[in-house]
Amino acid sequence: MDISSFLTSLLTSFVIFVVLVLLFTWLSRRPGNAPVYYPSVLLRGLDPWEGRGRGTRSPVGWIRQAFAASEPDVVAAGGLDAAVYLVFLSSVLAILVFSAIVLLPVLLPVAGTDHALEDSTGRVPPNVTDFERLALGNVKDESARLWAFIFAVYWVSFVTYFILWRSYKHVSNLRAAARSTSDVKPEEFAMLVRDVPVPPPDQTIKDSVDSYFRALHPDTFYKAMVVTDIKKADKIFQEIEGHKQKIAHAEAVYAESKTTNRPEGTRPTHRTGFLGLIGKKVDTLEYCSEKIKELLPKLEDEQKSTLSDKQQRAAFVFFNSRAAAASASQTLHAQMFDEWTVTEAPEPREVIWTNLPKKIYDRQTRQTVVYLIVFVTVVFYMIPITAISAVTTLQKLREKLPFLKVVVDQPLLTTVLQAYLPQIALIVFLALLPTLLMLLSKLEGIPSQSHLVRAASGKYFYFIVFNVFIGYAIGSSLFSALQDVINNPPGIFTTLGARLPGNATFFLTFVALKFFVGYGLELSRLVPLIIFHLKRKYLCKTEDEVRAAWAPGDLGYNTRVPNDMLIVTVVLCYSVIAPLILPFGVAYFALGWLIAKNQVLRVYVPSYESNGRMWPHMHTRIIAALMVYQATMIGIITAKRFYYSTILFPLLAISLIFAYTCHTRFYPAFAKTPLEVASQQLKETPNMSTIYTAYIPPCLKPEKLEDVEVFEDAQSRTTSRAPSF
Amino acid sequence: MDISSFLTSLLTSFVIFVVLVLLFTWLSRRPGNAPVYYPSVLLRGLDPWEGRGRGTRSPVGWIRQAFAASEPDVVAAGGLDAAVYLVFLSSVLAILVFSAIVLLPVLLPVAGTDHALEDSTGRVPPNVTDFERLALGNVKDESARLWAFIFAVYWVSFVTYFILWRSYKHVSNLRAAARSTSDVKPEEFAMLVRDVPVPPPDQTIKDSVDSYFRALHPDTFYKAMVVTDIKKADKIFQEIEGHKQKIAHAEAVYAESKTTNRPEGTRPTHRTGFLGLIGKKVDTLEYCSEKIKELLPKLEDEQKSTLSDKQQRAAFVFFNSRAAAASASQTLHAQMFDEWTVTEAPEPREVIWTNLPKKIYDRQTRQTVVYLIVFVTVVFYMIPITAISAVTTLQKLREKLPFLKVVVDQPLLTTVLQAYLPQIALIVFLALLPTLLMLLSKLEGIPSQSHLVRAASGKYFYFIVFNVFIGYAIGSSLFSALQDVINNPPGIFTTLGARLPGNATFFLTFVALKFFVGYGLELSRLVPLIIFHLKRKYLCKTEDEVRAAWAPGDLGYNTRVPNDMLIVTVVLCYSVIAPLILPFGVAYFALGWLIAKNQVLRVYVPSYESNGRMWPHMHTRIIAALMVYQATMIGIITAKRFYYSTILFPLLAISLIFAYTCHTRFYPAFAKTPLEVASQQLKETPNMSTIYTAYIPPCLKPEKLEDVEVFEDAQSRTTSRAPSF
Repeated sequence: MDISSFLTSLLTSFVIFVVLVLLFTWLSRRPGNAPVYYPSVLLRGLDPWEGRGRGTRSPVGWIRQAFAASEPDVVAAGGLDAAVYLVFLSSVLAILVFSAIVLLPVLLPVAGTDHALEDSTGRVPPNVTDFERLALGNVKDESARLWAFIFAVYWVSFVTYFILWRSYKHVSNLRAAARSTSDVKPEEFAMLVRDVPVPPPDQTIKDSVDSYFRALHPDTFYKAMVVTDIKKADKIFQEIEGHKQKIAHAEAVYAESKTTNRPEGTRPTHRTGFLGLIGKKVDTLEYCSEKIKELLPKLEDEQKSTLSDKQQRAAFVFFNSRAAAASASQTLHAQMFDEWTVTEAPEPREVIWTNLPKKIYDRQTRQTVVYLIVFVTVVFYMIPITAISAVTTLQKLREKLPFLKVVVDQPLLTTVLQAYLPQIALIVFLALLPTLLMLLSKLEGIPSQSHLVRAASGKYFYFIVFNVFIGYAIGSSLFSALQDVINNPPGIFTTLGARLPGNATFFLTFVALKFFVGYGLELSRLVPLIIFHLKRKYLCKTEDEVRAAWAPGDLGYNTRVPNDMLIVTVVLCYSVIAPLILPFGVAYFALGWLIAKNQVLRVYVPSYESNGRMWPHMHTRIIAALMVYQATMIGIITAKRFYYSTILFPLLAISLIFAYTCHTRFYPAFAKTPLEVASQQLKETPNMSTIYTAYIPPCLKPEKLEDVEVFEDAQSRTTSRAPSF
Repeated sequence: MDISSFLTSLLTSFVIFVVLVLLFTWLSRRPGNAPVYYPSVLLRGLDPWEGRGRGTRSPVGWIRQAFAASEPDVVAAGGLDAAVYLVFLSSVLAILVFSAIVLLPVLLPVAGTDHALEDSTGRVPPNVTDFERLALGNVKDESARLWAFIFAVYWVSFVTYFILWRSYKHVSNLRAAARSTSDVKPEEFAMLVRDVPVPPPDQTIKDSVDSYFRALHPDTFYKAMVVTDIKKADKIFQEIEGHKQKIAHAEAVYAESKTTNRPEGTRPTHRTGFLGLIGKKVDTLEYCSEKIKELLPKLEDEQKSTLSDKQQRAAFVFFNSRAAAASASQTLHAQMFDEWTVTEAPEPREVIWTNLPKKIYDRQTRQTVVYLIVFVTVVFYMIPITAISAVTTLQKLREKLPFLKVVVDQPLLTTVLQAYLPQIALIVFLALLPTLLMLLSKLEGIPSQSHLVRAASGKYFYFIVFNVFIGYAIGSSLFSALQDVINNPPGIFTTLGARLPGNATFFLTFVALKFFVGYGLELSRLVPLIIFHLKRKYLCKTEDEVRAAWAPGDLGYNTRVPNDMLIVTVVLCYSVIAPLILPFGVAYFALGWLIAKNQVLRVYVPSYESNGRMWPHMHTRIIAALMVYQATMIGIITAKRFYYSTILFPLLAISLIFAYTCHTRFYPAFAKTPLEVASQQLKETPNMSTIYTAYIPPCLKPEKLEDVEVFEDAQSRTTSRAPSF
């Protein structure tokens, strides 16, 4: 890529960004758009413009507000998970800023005043850009200047350790504070039990769970709730809900049709067949009420039979104190690990019910299979990526597809296309993955949504690093490179070292494109805005429907975090090769932090709260990125035939030790609830019945079963074939 | 090594063994030797010959008894750890027997009827032994006969999985049974707390421990005992004990000297200087009584100051039920992992007091350093081993050291020496290691003796496998081989594969020597017998001294297990290369099981009880040996240019999955106490004060401090500089 297409790319990206920000400033000030730009504020029952005076309406008001909001504000608005995500962004920002203030003034002059890229006559060839002249590539082999680069690697590493240590401590305290609040949270009184053994024939599962835990925790056991197979009950429940919505919609339509001219109005009708397009035409209001009347007794029957006959081998066990629940969930219960496995209970809203009854061997097998699939996918997705990187020069494309000549020969279009084609290919490609990975992770048998997101984003990270980074960097001669690596694993350093510098410009453009266009779209929310207005105009008739049209969703950590991690990896790896990438990295994370904070305060609504359990995951991956960086630098400096590069080896060991130390020191408090935290005094005596009810799935608790006693009795009803005595 | 020296080695070993067994039969029947051959029986207060009639005195009576003893007998006599060790031996025996009954009839004809070792004229060269002709080496390259060997590897692997799974289950049940007995064991009511944070200045450590655990376990906390620095108190205590022993000894000597001729006798004297050889001559009885009188008040003062001023940042916390202790020791207590770390308490008699107060970072650093040292030692001990294997042929030795000619030129001596020299060098070499490894492991900060033994024997295993097996097998060209391996790690398979077959005879002799001579010595107990008789005749005057002279000690798992593991590894690896090694392996473990059972029933007395925690360690190492074997076989068969060897690769994966499955299924019940087990009913109401007293170190609980209240008060006495209020 030459300098002009690089600048074009940068400039167009920037223009798009500015346009989008201006759009945002204009659109977000129109009250009608409030549900798009302030949904979180509205949902918390506040007025978006209340009490903030002129500031809010000024073009930069949102920036001022984002800066002004404190961490507790963020926790209050978006939960601890959002606050932890902001800590992640600011930590990376701090790492890059501290790196930049030393690396830029030191390395640019050192590299810029050397002459490796000059030809024999002492002149710089015209195809070498200034950008390349200010990078490691311009330093001669065996030059003593390489000491500066070795120092830089050490500096970046220690800055990373320092910032990460502080951040881990900070997040750890945040988590402890959030967990020791005096609010009653149902999940803190519960424990999830899986792999319940088959009960004797005269007992239901519920009875055996009850008697087992009552015997082991005689003083603290409150109640147990057995997980049931709610598939059928849920289907009927959803049907009823659907009919209710249809009635509400039809009533609104009916009311609208009663104009003064035709006070009787038109009763809305629909067809009962496929998609309402074929079949008998019926009066919607009558038909749906009829259906509901039909379904309600069915639901009731189904609820009863579900509770008594469809008990699964998993349960929630409730204790009468937080400390008892915390202690019990950390204690091994059965002699055989494949029975009565206990874990902390997830929040009721994030439970994945269908995964709970999966047996331990089933889970292990599924996990193995899923990891195999992911591994195979990582390896074979390299083929399309390799193809992309081989075809990315338009000249090659033109040779192979002559009919493109007309397009390619237009100079302006060529420049733009040349600047964007590979990046767009990559971005589209990556957009397809998260759904697949969430699906795969769900198949593993993971019991909660937050865990699922962590698992999926872990896989996505490997995907991204292996495919995009290593895949693109090693580029077109991937397979020969792979061959080298297999025959000579330490050679991966030199292979990476030899190939990375050439791709610096590509990744610079990639980062720039991602943040200008990505953040512009994120902030301006153009897509949700258009969808909202279309829906409101043509589809929504009731309040509920309008509310559903602007429901903001949550932050989507499973794609956000790995994408940010890719940028971290890329920027770290190039920080010493081509220090000019650092300002772009700083801009990415500074803007990212600002925009994410704005979105957290005003837009997104968390769908669950894991109290920062995402952090250890982020922490480990930042260290992984750092180690990729360190290994790469060893290779690059060795490739310059500068054998003092060996003094970088200890860094790899230090990184491992650092990761291990952080893990032993901080991780246990993330994986388990410390007794110190669980023993905090509560504000009020917990209402155990409310806690218990929180875990009843919606399809099992409407109307007649609202009384918990009935629910319980239904579960305990002995379905004995053999008499109890 | 040629066939004659091999047979000589075998024959002499066997003769030595027979002589030693005859000696044992003769010696063990003499009542005066009972303390050497029946110490465990005597200590349990039984009569060695009681009620067993003629059988005991018949030459094979011990064999009959060993077979007759059931597992509960073994547990009663030698504890669960001994029973688990016997399970280990019998499991390996079963693996080898099942392997042998298929491998011998299948592989011997397949190998024996091929012709790879014949020269071009179709005759077998005279230097090829029958032993070599019946091995894999005689199969031609690319021969379809190699399918039989591939099948054999699969057979051995699946036999191993099957036996190991059954054994793990069996040991797991043994452990559960042992742990759920209704006897009161102090360690089941206690929990070890380390990394106690520095208390505020107006509190002692004892106070802060008390208040912390009382707050977190209000209903179940009984008492806490802070670990103190007992070095000085223990020194005084030992001095007093030494003087007491001297007085007892001197009194016996004095009484002996009062013959009818000289009724006044001679008062024993000794010199006070170095080793009693120089210095002033004093009357022993008077001098020692004087000394004790002097030391007693000193001890008392020291005890008091130890308890109040030398409190360390570690403690034992006692609970009023087993379930509470089990649950508490598995629960994370503090938000920061480097404070208040809790683990299950070890038995009082196996506590390593000096290691308890070591902080977590100290422990981690020490562990890292120790592993580094072990790693360096593993690598550098290869040099002497290589030297040994280079010099092991006497001819080479003779060339280098001409003065040995006289010895070497005697034909008989040459044969014997040639047969034994390398093996003896190895055995002597390995005998030096265990002490070093125990010392190193102790430096890691491990809190209990049983854990220490596991750690040391783990290190010893790596040592043995790397040095003896790989080191000797790769042999004289070790460094060039190492070079190959570093450049091309997968090449380790081919390297091992190419070199192993040639050393089969060496290892066969090694196994034979080990079991014939080793077991002969073990059974006949010649060394303890001689020492006992010498001591009794010349040194012991009092009953206590005689008792000390025959004290049998325990089984010494830290050397036994790794040595057995070496044999397992060697026999497994050669089982397919040279199936004739299998009968030797079977003999080793059959004899080993028989003799170990005899020794457990009659001789050794366990010095601690870890309830079979050694088993997971043995299990993992058997799988490691199996994987070395599988990898080696892949190499060997590939070296025969038979590329279907790739169908052996899945075996490596299966082994890993098997190990992982066993680990998740069984290991937690070894690392922690399941609540099910801890909640068993007790025979009697536990006497909490006895439980507490069990953990007071001997030097802190004599005479005046026998009253626990005093001990406690001394610990709680506030040493405040700032007034409490």
